[in-house]
Amino acid sequence: MNSSYTKLENRFRQISRLKDLQAIASWDEAVMMPLGSGPYRNDALAELTVVIQNLSMSPEIGDWLNDCETLSLDNWQKANVREMRRLYLENTAIPADLNQRLVLARMSCEQHWRTLRAHNNWREFMPYLDEVLKLTREMIQCLSDKLRLSTYDTALSLYSPGLNTSTVEKMFGELKGFLPTLIDNVIEKQNRETVIIPEGIFPKEAQKALASELMQIVGFSTDIGRLDESHHPFCGGTARDVRITTRYNEREFISSLMGVLHETGHAVYEQHLPEKWLGQPVGAGCGMSIHESQSLLMEMQICRSREFLTFAAPYIRRHMQPFVRNSESLETENLIRLMTRVRKSLIRVDADEVTYPAHIILRFELERDLLENRWPLTNLPEAWNEKMKSYLGLSTLGDDKHGCMQDVHWPSGSFGYFPAYTFGAVIAAQLFTKIEEERPSVRTDIANGNFDFIQSWLTENIWTQGSRLGTLELVEQASGNLSLAPFHKHLHRRYLSDA
Amino acid sequence: MNSSYTKLENRFRQISRLKDLQAIASWDEAVMMPLGSGPYRNDALAELTVVIQNLSMSPEIGDWLNDCETLSLDNWQKANVREMRRLYLENTAIPADLNQRLVLARMSCEQHWRTLRAHNNWREFMPYLDEVLKLTREMIQCLSDKLRLSTYDTALSLYSPGLNTSTVEKMFGELKGFLPTLIDNVIEKQNRETVIIPEGIFPKEAQKALASELMQIVGFSTDIGRLDESHHPFCGGTARDVRITTRYNEREFISSLMGVLHETGHAVYEQHLPEKWLGQPVGAGCGMSIHESQSLLMEMQICRSREFLTFAAPYIRRHMQPFVRNSESLETENLIRLMTRVRKSLIRVDADEVTYPAHIILRFELERDLLENRWPLTNLPEAWNEKMKSYLGLSTLGDDKHGCMQDVHWPSGSFGYFPAYTFGAVIAAQLFTKIEEERPSVRTDIANGNFDFIQSWLTENIWTQGSRLGTLELVEQASGNLSLAPFHKHLHRRYLSDA
Repeated sequence: MNSSYTKLENRFRQISRLKDLQAIASWDEAVMMPLGSGPYRNDALAELTVVIQNLSMSPEIGDWLNDCETLSLDNWQKANVREMRRLYLENTAIPADLNQRLVLARMSCEQHWRTLRAHNNWREFMPYLDEVLKLTREMIQCLSDKLRLSTYDTALSLYSPGLNTSTVEKMFGELKGFLPTLIDNVIEKQNRETVIIPEGIFPKEAQKALASELMQIVGFSTDIGRLDESHHPFCGGTARDVRITTRYNEREFISSLMGVLHETGHAVYEQHLPEKWLGQPVGAGCGMSIHESQSLLMEMQICRSREFLTFAAPYIRRHMQPFVRNSESLETENLIRLMTRVRKSLIRVDADEVTYPAHIILRFELERDLLENRWPLTNLPEAWNEKMKSYLGLSTLGDDKHGCMQDVHWPSGSFGYFPAYTFGAVIAAQLFTKIEEERPSVRTDIANGNFDFIQSWLTENIWTQGSRLGTLELVEQASGNLSLAPFHKHLHRRYLSDA
Repeated sequence: MNSSYTKLENRFRQISRLKDLQAIASWDEAVMMPLGSGPYRNDALAELTVVIQNLSMSPEIGDWLNDCETLSLDNWQKANVREMRRLYLENTAIPADLNQRLVLARMSCEQHWRTLRAHNNWREFMPYLDEVLKLTREMIQCLSDKLRLSTYDTALSLYSPGLNTSTVEKMFGELKGFLPTLIDNVIEKQNRETVIIPEGIFPKEAQKALASELMQIVGFSTDIGRLDESHHPFCGGTARDVRITTRYNEREFISSLMGVLHETGHAVYEQHLPEKWLGQPVGAGCGMSIHESQSLLMEMQICRSREFLTFAAPYIRRHMQPFVRNSESLETENLIRLMTRVRKSLIRVDADEVTYPAHIILRFELERDLLENRWPLTNLPEAWNEKMKSYLGLSTLGDDKHGCMQDVHWPSGSFGYFPAYTFGAVIAAQLFTKIEEERPSVRTDIANGNFDFIQSWLTENIWTQGSRLGTLELVEQASGNLSLAPFHKHLHRRYLSDA
């Protein structure tokens, strides 16, 4: 059949293959490229971007999509066309000059952010953020007109298709109801415990050997993936050539190890996307909430659990014992306490899983208001400080560096992304609860280093589903309506029960 | 000015940038890519190749080239148009279906060559080579009609623009006149000397540290280049992001070291191509004879010289002393003897600089006859054996694995490449002689590890010339008419004088 549908598949396959090369060249830029080659690489990547844009935006795609309405397609094909339509709309609804201004404004804002954040200089930074915010509003307006969605629903849809503001508000409202008290109770309980920080110089090579071993045990395939070093850790590459990077601090090995295992959650998802639909929009990962749910299921549900750490402690000792000065810090119970430590802090990326949602709710409420222009951007530092005091009891007054200037998301134009982190955590808890229902011995499996059941369940219910369903539909099909209860229960069980 | 010339520059710049990404992705494939990602990478690279082909072959390029005839252009622009015309002709003169058949025949022949060579199976291999040969003849016919060049002149022009058969025949005729006697005399002289082979296990890390240090001393910039490992060593990447690879044998460190320094010659040429013309055809390296001249100038004229080895011996000892069992093997005089050892052997890639031309002359004579269809391919093993006996006194009768099946060039369709190796050696000798004329103390410079004069001379006379001139013109402008005398003198001086 050489129908319009086939033409669409061919075009999107072509685009996907070129994007694969873009991904590898970008990985190379971050990990391998010699410094002086930067400007040439930028030119080359920009040229490929133009090629991809031309292929993605050509009007024949619109014609083919229209033709598809009269074709009889199976469910996967229909979902593929739906995703193609969504991407084509996102690519074409925004006028070229607006898009161009937005790209430049983001780039300029992000560049100034790097220095002005270091200097805690909100006053000089604000105009750059204001420009990004205004243009982002304009861009979202173009899309929301076509999508017939509200402003913030549109912003959410760019990162978590199918998620909507009222679901976020309901979930975050419930969370706010119990989180502050829960945090205080956990901290009070943990204050009665002793935790020993491992001291020593832990060589990169030993850290890498430990991380490599554990990431493979939990499912990462080195046949179609690599672990390397970069200044800013990320999970890049392609679905069948996943490139995880990390950064090693030789004085502290836990952050990098847990970082690698978190990225491994993203990676195994990519490595198991449906072979048959690779290169098609429906074969891609289902947005950032689901993606974060996979990294958090790996990191929080599995790897920071008592069972996993009991299994992993001998590995940690084998690699780190030669370098640690206080070997009692590597005892299993101490490792468990170390990896489940809860503290109120100003910085989101350093937060534990209990306080993390507070950071996210704060950002959601602020970015929703900003996008909807409910109050002027000048109020942001004060509004941030108010919420920080209310949710975590901490002040950022006069400390915007550790307040509203701490994240790269807004300077780079990502409004609507933040809820994905906490939806990811909530989804991860619900999926793990479902897995445990289906296999009550799953925690024993984990303690034995056996991840077969978890992997086959996720392969069937999440990984090979690609983008066939929206965020909430996928969760529902796999585990029932999304509810906060499993996450709430998980936090209670791990942090407040006496087990 | 938005003339046809500018349009051509823009188009070729675009093509060049996309080819840069192709080069990086190919390097990644050889050095970094996990095994299981191969098929996906092939698809992605093939897709980019199609994009590049479409951009390279579009008829508007022909129109713009015609318009250029009436424009007033400077010398560099004229040379750029000449190179564009050459490339456009090479890209368009061959019918798509012939090109397709040739690509498939080469791929199939090369694949079968890998196994059939190992089994010394000429009989089964011959039909594959025959198919490549026939299609290559057809392809060259298409080009030679348009170029108004003879068959072999056309083949030469694909690798060494401006080189022609009569120049090759004349040069190789002279070489044949003195080479066999010279080889015998050198071997007789060396038979009276003792050479000690370094014994020990030389760790990769130590070999890499030594190679990195020396390659930077002789001019390689790590600001725009890297050294890595791969199964088959090569010099890839782009002009401003050169990727050298090598392979380490822990029982023998000299081959890899000299291999890296050879590739460094290619690399420094690329790293110094004219900044202003990067991305334009005239800004590229001037064909394979000149490229080989730069690697051989580095390896043979500089790095295997008594002066360089006197300078380098302490570096070699510093890195290798801890691992060598017979430390007398690292004494300077022994290192010099080791790196200038001459032996008759069957294998080109293992040959020293004295016997190397014999291997090349043999191949040139055979491939010229084959392309011109002077005798049937069935005769090749016998013809090879005859020439091998005549030039080096060795027989390959019944040993085609080490005879006419040893090289990848013909199976992969490269007919006309081989002369570049020996023209490279001859050009290198002439350029070095010219440098020594202009700076009589250049050998003292080398012994002191000072490469400033050599680098600035090559920068001015070769590297920044790009493809402005043809092979022989470039040599002539830099050092006078190409002559065999400096090469002959170089061999005498190094291998037969008593100094």
